[in-house]
Amino acid sequence: MRRRSAPGTAPGTLIPDPAAQRPTIHYWRYDREHCEEQQNCAPEKLEPPQSASEVVWVDVVGLGDSALVQRIGERFGFHPLALEDVVNVHQRPKVENYDDHLYVVVRMANYDGQGAETEQVSMFHAPGLVLTFQERPGDCFEPVRERIRRAKGRLRGMAGDYLLYALIDSVVDGYFPLLERHGDSLETIEQQIITDPSSECIEQLHSLRRELLALRRAIWPTRDMLAALLREEPGFVSDATRLYLRDVHDHTVQLIDIVETYREITAGLIEAYLSSLSTKLNEVMKVLTLMATFFLPLTFITSLYGMNFDRGSPWNMPELGWRLGYPFALSVMMIAAGALLYFFWRKGWFKG
Amino acid sequence: MRRRSAPGTAPGTLIPDPAAQRPTIHYWRYDREHCEEQQNCAPEKLEPPQSASEVVWVDVVGLGDSALVQRIGERFGFHPLALEDVVNVHQRPKVENYDDHLYVVVRMANYDGQGAETEQVSMFHAPGLVLTFQERPGDCFEPVRERIRRAKGRLRGMAGDYLLYALIDSVVDGYFPLLERHGDSLETIEQQIITDPSSECIEQLHSLRRELLALRRAIWPTRDMLAALLREEPGFVSDATRLYLRDVHDHTVQLIDIVETYREITAGLIEAYLSSLSTKLNEVMKVLTLMATFFLPLTFITSLYGMNFDRGSPWNMPELGWRLGYPFALSVMMIAAGALLYFFWRKGWFKG
Amino acid sequence: MRRRSAPGTAPGTLIPDPAAQRPTIHYWRYDREHCEEQQNCAPEKLEPPQSASEVVWVDVVGLGDSALVQRIGERFGFHPLALEDVVNVHQRPKVENYDDHLYVVVRMANYDGQGAETEQVSMFHAPGLVLTFQERPGDCFEPVRERIRRAKGRLRGMAGDYLLYALIDSVVDGYFPLLERHGDSLETIEQQIITDPSSECIEQLHSLRRELLALRRAIWPTRDMLAALLREEPGFVSDATRLYLRDVHDHTVQLIDIVETYREITAGLIEAYLSSLSTKLNEVMKVLTLMATFFLPLTFITSLYGMNFDRGSPWNMPELGWRLGYPFALSVMMIAAGALLYFFWRKGWFKG
Amino acid sequence: MRRRSAPGTAPGTLIPDPAAQRPTIHYWRYDREHCEEQQNCAPEKLEPPQSASEVVWVDVVGLGDSALVQRIGERFGFHPLALEDVVNVHQRPKVENYDDHLYVVVRMANYDGQGAETEQVSMFHAPGLVLTFQERPGDCFEPVRERIRRAKGRLRGMAGDYLLYALIDSVVDGYFPLLERHGDSLETIEQQIITDPSSECIEQLHSLRRELLALRRAIWPTRDMLAALLREEPGFVSDATRLYLRDVHDHTVQLIDIVETYREITAGLIEAYLSSLSTKLNEVMKVLTLMATFFLPLTFITSLYGMNFDRGSPWNMPELGWRLGYPFALSVMMIAAGALLYFFWRKGWFKG
Amino acid sequence: MRRRSAPGTAPGTLIPDPAAQRPTIHYWRYDREHCEEQQNCAPEKLEPPQSASEVVWVDVVGLGDSALVQRIGERFGFHPLALEDVVNVHQRPKVENYDDHLYVVVRMANYDGQGAETEQVSMFHAPGLVLTFQERPGDCFEPVRERIRRAKGRLRGMAGDYLLYALIDSVVDGYFPLLERHGDSLETIEQQIITDPSSECIEQLHSLRRELLALRRAIWPTRDMLAALLREEPGFVSDATRLYLRDVHDHTVQLIDIVETYREITAGLIEAYLSSLSTKLNEVMKVLTLMATFFLPLTFITSLYGMNFDRGSPWNMPELGWRLGYPFALSVMMIAAGALLYFFWRKGWFKG
Repeated sequence: MRRRSAPGTAPGTLIPDPAAQRPTIHYWRYDREHCEEQQNCAPEKLEPPQSASEVVWVDVVGLGDSALVQRIGERFGFHPLALEDVVNVHQRPKVENYDDHLYVVVRMANYDGQGAETEQVSMFHAPGLVLTFQERPGDCFEPVRERIRRAKGRLRGMAGDYLLYALIDSVVDGYFPLLERHGDSLETIEQQIITDPSSECIEQLHSLRRELLALRRAIWPTRDMLAALLREEPGFVSDATRLYLRDVHDHTVQLIDIVETYREITAGLIEAYLSSLSTKLNEVMKVLTLMATFFLPLTFITSLYGMNFDRGSPWNMPELGWRLGYPFALSVMMIAAGALLYFFWRKGWFKG
Repeated sequence: MRRRSAPGTAPGTLIPDPAAQRPTIHYWRYDREHCEEQQNCAPEKLEPPQSASEVVWVDVVGLGDSALVQRIGERFGFHPLALEDVVNVHQRPKVENYDDHLYVVVRMANYDGQGAETEQVSMFHAPGLVLTFQERPGDCFEPVRERIRRAKGRLRGMAGDYLLYALIDSVVDGYFPLLERHGDSLETIEQQIITDPSSECIEQLHSLRRELLALRRAIWPTRDMLAALLREEPGFVSDATRLYLRDVHDHTVQLIDIVETYREITAGLIEAYLSSLSTKLNEVMKVLTLMATFFLPLTFITSLYGMNFDRGSPWNMPELGWRLGYPFALSVMMIAAGALLYFFWRKGWFKG
Repeated sequence: MRRRSAPGTAPGTLIPDPAAQRPTIHYWRYDREHCEEQQNCAPEKLEPPQSASEVVWVDVVGLGDSALVQRIGERFGFHPLALEDVVNVHQRPKVENYDDHLYVVVRMANYDGQGAETEQVSMFHAPGLVLTFQERPGDCFEPVRERIRRAKGRLRGMAGDYLLYALIDSVVDGYFPLLERHGDSLETIEQQIITDPSSECIEQLHSLRRELLALRRAIWPTRDMLAALLREEPGFVSDATRLYLRDVHDHTVQLIDIVETYREITAGLIEAYLSSLSTKLNEVMKVLTLMATFFLPLTFITSLYGMNFDRGSPWNMPELGWRLGYPFALSVMMIAAGALLYFFWRKGWFKG
Repeated sequence: MRRRSAPGTAPGTLIPDPAAQRPTIHYWRYDREHCEEQQNCAPEKLEPPQSASEVVWVDVVGLGDSALVQRIGERFGFHPLALEDVVNVHQRPKVENYDDHLYVVVRMANYDGQGAETEQVSMFHAPGLVLTFQERPGDCFEPVRERIRRAKGRLRGMAGDYLLYALIDSVVDGYFPLLERHGDSLETIEQQIITDPSSECIEQLHSLRRELLALRRAIWPTRDMLAALLREEPGFVSDATRLYLRDVHDHTVQLIDIVETYREITAGLIEAYLSSLSTKLNEVMKVLTLMATFFLPLTFITSLYGMNFDRGSPWNMPELGWRLGYPFALSVMMIAAGALLYFFWRKGWFKG
Repeated sequence: MRRRSAPGTAPGTLIPDPAAQRPTIHYWRYDREHCEEQQNCAPEKLEPPQSASEVVWVDVVGLGDSALVQRIGERFGFHPLALEDVVNVHQRPKVENYDDHLYVVVRMANYDGQGAETEQVSMFHAPGLVLTFQERPGDCFEPVRERIRRAKGRLRGMAGDYLLYALIDSVVDGYFPLLERHGDSLETIEQQIITDPSSECIEQLHSLRRELLALRRAIWPTRDMLAALLREEPGFVSDATRLYLRDVHDHTVQLIDIVETYREITAGLIEAYLSSLSTKLNEVMKVLTLMATFFLPLTFITSLYGMNFDRGSPWNMPELGWRLGYPFALSVMMIAAGALLYFFWRKGWFKG
């Protein structure tokens, strides 16, 4: 499930996933007036910000070249343990304070919305600098890039912590469409369970439950991470940005609320399905018991008079010789049937 | 399920729900002696309070015009993040302190009492000023309005924080009639499950459970919100009003207590229903087994003597030729039946 | 379920329950040497304590006259919110500090021990003064009254806080006999479930569970109330009395412990009942399957030789003409039966 | 279940259990050099320690004489509330600080290991003094007594708090053998459930669950008691002894860990038993359905040709007159049987 | 289950497990420049570090000689309670501060990965010194030894606390491969339950659940132990090493996350299996009921006309004499069959 270095290996050893993509580097440098964007920037050209008002954003997509990751990390002085986590892509969302830089891990909902798979996004933040590492191309940062390019909103005029906020905000908000889809599925399944509970429903519910479990594992620690970020001393996050981070924290609380509600609804639907199964089984068994109980005695009587005892003896089945033997037998059957029907009616078996 | 701006959009962007109502504005200004009320007030006429003893209440109903919301917000200097939440009507109850104003979200139980749907009410509070945004016309504030108009109680003589309290109190107390109705349903269903458990009961229980889940999601965070409000420094809430807010907090605790009790009762009833199903299934199966076990051997015997073997051979079914063959067969059957009845009696199957 | 003023009503409005009893007032005034007791005291004669060593206890039974409640409350300067809660008899146990007096709510187990219904007892405490409001006549305070009258123990020599303790202690200890009764029921039911699980057991268990739920709702907040009382600053509760209150707190912890244990035992018994149902169903079905599987093939064979094909053709049922046809058929049946019995024995169906 | 004074009785009233044993008193006085032991000491001869290095241990076994308990308590100045708890033998483990002495309650696992019944041991500790009250003769303190007598280990050279530790340690360690026995039972039952799940297993599991519940009730508060003892100020417990108490605390954590694990295993085994029942029921029903479905159509056909319609009419059962009527009927049956077998095979019913 | 000294034994008594291995001692002494390694070192040759930059690691494998353990412990001045825990190999992971040394217990996943069995590793840490006690040969420390020998990474240049970290890190990381295996099993079982749920699945799930329970018991307290280690004052753990320990703590959080997720998935699969059983039972019963309900009435009719009433009387079974009696009987059967099929179709029984 999760590839990692062998137990006991020296910490800070970067062992890339053999299936990981080759990295490409996007470099941004902007302040309120200027904005410089460089695609496929060479690692040696990554310049830290030149003035207090400048913000540099380095966005690395693909983790296939651990030497490159190490070189970038060393250039900006990041801690080897954090770099190890960048390459080990099964981290839980967290924030780590390494005195002169913050290391933030978030998990991005697959942007094509395929399912419960999430992608690790590692972020480094030092004053004026944001560095992001993504596993794969395709992300939810395009609107942020547009806001930088077009100087929309207050992003261009704010420091690096605001960029960090904007990126985390995009990632968190990316869970909402996913959950909306799950909400729609739940409603469809609920409708089906009421009208016609099939075994497909239950399979869908079980797989939905697993996806919600996976989402929960991604979202809960995100909330804790944001709470920890809000508790950080003001070195990395200014008070103005803190208000915005509080808003993101609020969104994660909402997400957790939705996920937990969906989990409860899922559990409720599974229970509803099972109880509908039980009800149906009861009904089926009642029909069977009714039919069997009704016809078994009747068939016994008919079978009785189908015996071939020698009619020579007066003791052998004299009823067969009676003039009204057949009507007599029919009457016995009717009485038996009537008694049984009365018995069933008393038991209330004809009600539902 | 919940409409929101695309992930990555700049914060503070107000995207109104296309189905939202056009807003109307009600304006109140009062102190101990005077009271001025204006329906359908134009937004540019909204005046802040003129003296320390005056209270202004602006009540906006309908969120269909985001430009208007923004204009009102800017006029009173409210934070864009809060305004975004006003229009995004799926917030959880919360309180946010923006230094010079408080932003409070509560959820109002549908005042027609239709069900688990709740309506977001956003409240802004600055000294002397209360601003409320509602989604739809129809609310539980009418008694508060009467108290302002008729100067009943101490409302007219108190500051804005007391008005805030009075509005929150109305919203919280609005949950009690709803829960009373649920309590009545529960009692009806319980009665039914004891006397005649039908599958309708279980459907009602499952839907009740979902409604209680929804209510719980609305009430739990209300309690946390009130606890946070009580912890606020005295800038916004005076000590006198704090006592009243503690009372509202107490009501939410009571509501939570009721909701959790109802949830446990609902779960208990579902379990009771299922166990009654099991009991009934057992009973039905016992009847079936009794009948089948009783008649199968008898029918076998009758069927045996219905065979047509050639009576020429003395080995073929000599019983048929016996003078007392029929009584013999009947006796065998009676003995078999008696043995089976004894077996059932020993198993205790005739008891219940 | 709970009557209360309409949402939005001004706080402090006392709306009495129309079914509530007319109040009667009992007045006590005592110190170490003297003791004065007045039944049916008129409200205007209620005197506060005259010296620091005197203790006054006003015991109001019946809440049917809200004007009287208000008058008494005003006489002693109690807060309107507390008085509202006195009349609104569905409060949870709690303690509220109104600076110059404490307001304590406890719930008294029905003293006739009828069941899970509890009665609200509201207590006000100011130095030298204890005021209690009960819903109905009949309470567990008689031993306390005796201790005052006969100057037993240290009650007469202590301040008002010790009287408050003595009353709370009586209420808390009143739950023990009730729980003992539940414990006895549980043991009876357990015995029954082991020997003869009937559907009555399960109904009793379900109703027991509801009663335990109700008790738990009364006892849990009592513990929190006592913990809050112990944390109060020493103005209202002296250090000496605090030791006694700690003892009551300890009793509530014991009560909670018992209630939770009983709840677990109840849940365990319900599960045991259901698993015994399942076991029985399995057994019943095994008997049915055994009988059906045994006789169906045999009856088929007998039925086969009961067919009436024309014996003229040599192809039609030549077995019937065999000299040993009948013994042959019987042998076939015996072999089939033996094979089936062997099959069942292999499956282990005869074991239990 | 638990005898106690009537609600409202004055606190400190000692009402002994009428079934309690007559007390016997064992008196120890020792320091590093001397050790004096007195069996059946008279209560008036109980001397407190004479010097700072002396330790006195008074061990009272049997609580049948409440006057004696009271006399001893008064002699050493113990609080009446604590003495009441000594006689009321259903206390939860706890520690209470009465300024000049500590009162500790622990519950001793029945030393004959009979089951979940525990015995209350009350301990008083003042500097140089340890007083223990046991319900019945027979305890786990013998090794401690040996250590005093033979001056083994450091016990004789330490103060009274170390003796208190040694006694608590014995009581806590007494739970381990009991739990080991439960562990063995669990393994036996698990083996049985895998090989041959009988209804006895489930009864054993249900009773085991109750015993674990009782043990848990005894052990959880013991841990809290020890944590409270560790938090006590150094007046009663020296730093050296604290290290040892931390070790006992660690043992209770281990005990809780075992109990909780056993509870989970028990729950898992009950579930495993029920799922094995379901599997078996499914199997049984498949056999029944297979047999019924196979033979019902065949028997219908044979029964069809057993009808006695008048062969005079050419419309009445001409098949009976066919030369190959019997083979034809047999073929129809074989085809039907084959079709049904194919149907079952397709459904996968022959697999297992 | 767990061998321990009898309750009441003096603390610090070392009673070795009779089955424990004879110990062998490995001795390391290194600083940045030198490294000395000694296999099977004699206990009297164990030298503490000679200078502040030296680190000594004593690794004792096998606990069969308690005298030796005691001798080593005394040589380095370790507390007897800690030494008792070394030999009592069922400790939970914990850290204990004995003023001049730390005692750390971790549990090592069996290195051959056999299953849920874990081995206790006790570690002592004093400045410049690390002492480890293992139960059995075979561990996950080989890469650490290599790092010491070859001076890889920063291990040789760091103090003893870093060695302690490196050892704990190896132990914690050793759980990952084990859990990966469990993850693979879960996926295999899930696949099987979807395609062909057999009773083997459920047995595997139940045993997996127990293993996860055991792992959880080992990992949860490891996290608490690391959190406690991180809270330790800086005497034993330097700030630099603290960063690394935080990383290990993070790994345990990840492990707990995986274990809990697996536990939820296991529970979900068990539920899925049971609901698939129910679905299958319903299906089987529907087939049975269908067949029985269909053929019972038909067989009754055929059986009816198989009766042998004396045809002499005109009242006895005149249908048999009808010219179209047989076609008439067949039609009655067809109509009955059609009606039943229609009834089943209406009930929706042919759907699935």
